[in-house]
Amino acid sequence: MKPYIFGVDLGGTTVKIGLFENEELLDKWEIPTRTEENGKYILGDIADSILLQMQKRGISPGEIRGVGIDVPGAVLEDGTVNRCVNLGWGVVRAHEELNRLLNGIPVEVANDANAAALGEMWKGGGKGYSNVVMVTLGTGVGGGVIINGKIFSGAFGASGELGHMLVNPDETVLCGCGKKGHLEQYTSANGVARLAKKHLEASDEDSCLRREENVTSKAVCDGAKAGDKMCIEIMEEFGSILGRGLALVSCVVDPEIYVIGGGMSKAGPMVIDYVQKYYVEAAFHASTSTRFALAELGNDAGMYGCVKMVQDKIPE
Amino acid sequence: MKPYIFGVDLGGTTVKIGLFENEELLDKWEIPTRTEENGKYILGDIADSILLQMQKRGISPGEIRGVGIDVPGAVLEDGTVNRCVNLGWGVVRAHEELNRLLNGIPVEVANDANAAALGEMWKGGGKGYSNVVMVTLGTGVGGGVIINGKIFSGAFGASGELGHMLVNPDETVLCGCGKKGHLEQYTSANGVARLAKKHLEASDEDSCLRREENVTSKAVCDGAKAGDKMCIEIMEEFGSILGRGLALVSCVVDPEIYVIGGGMSKAGPMVIDYVQKYYVEAAFHASTSTRFALAELGNDAGMYGCVKMVQDKIPE
Repeated sequence: MKPYIFGVDLGGTTVKIGLFENEELLDKWEIPTRTEENGKYILGDIADSILLQMQKRGISPGEIRGVGIDVPGAVLEDGTVNRCVNLGWGVVRAHEELNRLLNGIPVEVANDANAAALGEMWKGGGKGYSNVVMVTLGTGVGGGVIINGKIFSGAFGASGELGHMLVNPDETVLCGCGKKGHLEQYTSANGVARLAKKHLEASDEDSCLRREENVTSKAVCDGAKAGDKMCIEIMEEFGSILGRGLALVSCVVDPEIYVIGGGMSKAGPMVIDYVQKYYVEAAFHASTSTRFALAELGNDAGMYGCVKMVQDKIPE
Repeated sequence: MKPYIFGVDLGGTTVKIGLFENEELLDKWEIPTRTEENGKYILGDIADSILLQMQKRGISPGEIRGVGIDVPGAVLEDGTVNRCVNLGWGVVRAHEELNRLLNGIPVEVANDANAAALGEMWKGGGKGYSNVVMVTLGTGVGGGVIINGKIFSGAFGASGELGHMLVNPDETVLCGCGKKGHLEQYTSANGVARLAKKHLEASDEDSCLRREENVTSKAVCDGAKAGDKMCIEIMEEFGSILGRGLALVSCVVDPEIYVIGGGMSKAGPMVIDYVQKYYVEAAFHASTSTRFALAELGNDAGMYGCVKMVQDKIPE
């Protein structure tokens, strides 16, 4: 019997580690991500933290089914990480290296957005479904595509890169990726703040946003809830761009459910209302009844997805 | 040993039937599609044609691994056909009915565009790849998504409905599906003819198209090859709309290769050149080197895909 699995969500600032026993989260903790010297200490720090936890709890390597880890970058089919700017990594065979540092405990690697999607399918907003698309509306827009219950990474690890769908060929401002007119420029938390600034500049209309020192997506959502006209208009614009974007996604993979996470999703069901209205209008007739749900696992989604990935890929 | 498989491509006018022996096409023939009385005779005609062929060749039911059939409509995960307007069908459990008519020979059903994609992956333009998106530029625009070597139909059978991606929210003319601004309104063979008419009306510029009684996509392709300025402009417009559309597809499923088929593909590699140029410009950086190929199996693609589907789903 191997009742234990570690799930490791490796971010640019912190590493979240969870210890699961028979599918239940037993404990979770964080360590800092040391990105200095091209992130050469990161995997060693993670291994040390896991080994220490095992020692504390008297868990032997033979009781561990595996370690799942996700990274903020492209992961190829064989588990090789292909560039993580936020970690300072180039091509890193993270699964092999971590496996060696953990004295042979099996390791599986995934992209962070994909892992979050898998986690939400397993224990979160997408529970009960096996064809799920998750959209994370945070600093940028991330996405994960789950096909028949498994992460689908694509040929170049770019499956689910919904934030970089070209939705406005006329855009002049650059997206973080270096191209222009991408979905995340309008529908991420930052994107909504950007839409708000445009609306404020375009007219003299009064709005609660004019009393904010720094206009955030949260202020826009709060304002829309309170009935502020300009905030509602901004949310309509956000909803139309994302709703139409997801209608495109349905023409490609036609999922059972969209799970919406990230900072924007904290505004609650209202966000779904704005998006779904335009989705239904734009979607091909067969796909108009696709479900929408909010993410439920917050920052733990990646960690959960990593554990599910170990369950799927490593025998008991 | 069961060396024989029948592949049946059921279209709105004719049914193409192929008999395969150990992966090789032994014979193919066509029968008319009798759509009268809500298409109630169609499956019986197909069964009769297969049984007759078996009798002629002295093939016993025990030597047949299965029959694969594709239909021009949505097919659910369990093989139920959910509306085929062109056949007059509502909900038809085609696999069960054909299985009964064939005295128990196993039957598998797929959507026609998906079957064509699988066929092209198996023996055509996508040979050697397992993550393939096929785009068929015919009367409309069809598509099929192959994930890990298998057809992926989606939750509502709408996976690969690339022709109904909303690419122009400002369009006023209706698409065949009843909505507006869809990819097939600009990039199908009919769509290209429509673009041509718009170009002709928009200026007095001379063009070889003005000497055509009926402007077709073939005339546009021929003109572009001959250096006609307006035809080249039309092809650029076609290429930009389709190239950007496929860049969106790559953000979702990031395939290894796009296979382009249908009437438009008869113009040859030029079509790929026009599309790929805009694809590379619009695609997320990780996906700019996705391959493009022309379909190779023509009207036989669906039949081949049906045979491959039987191989995948029915044990030897």
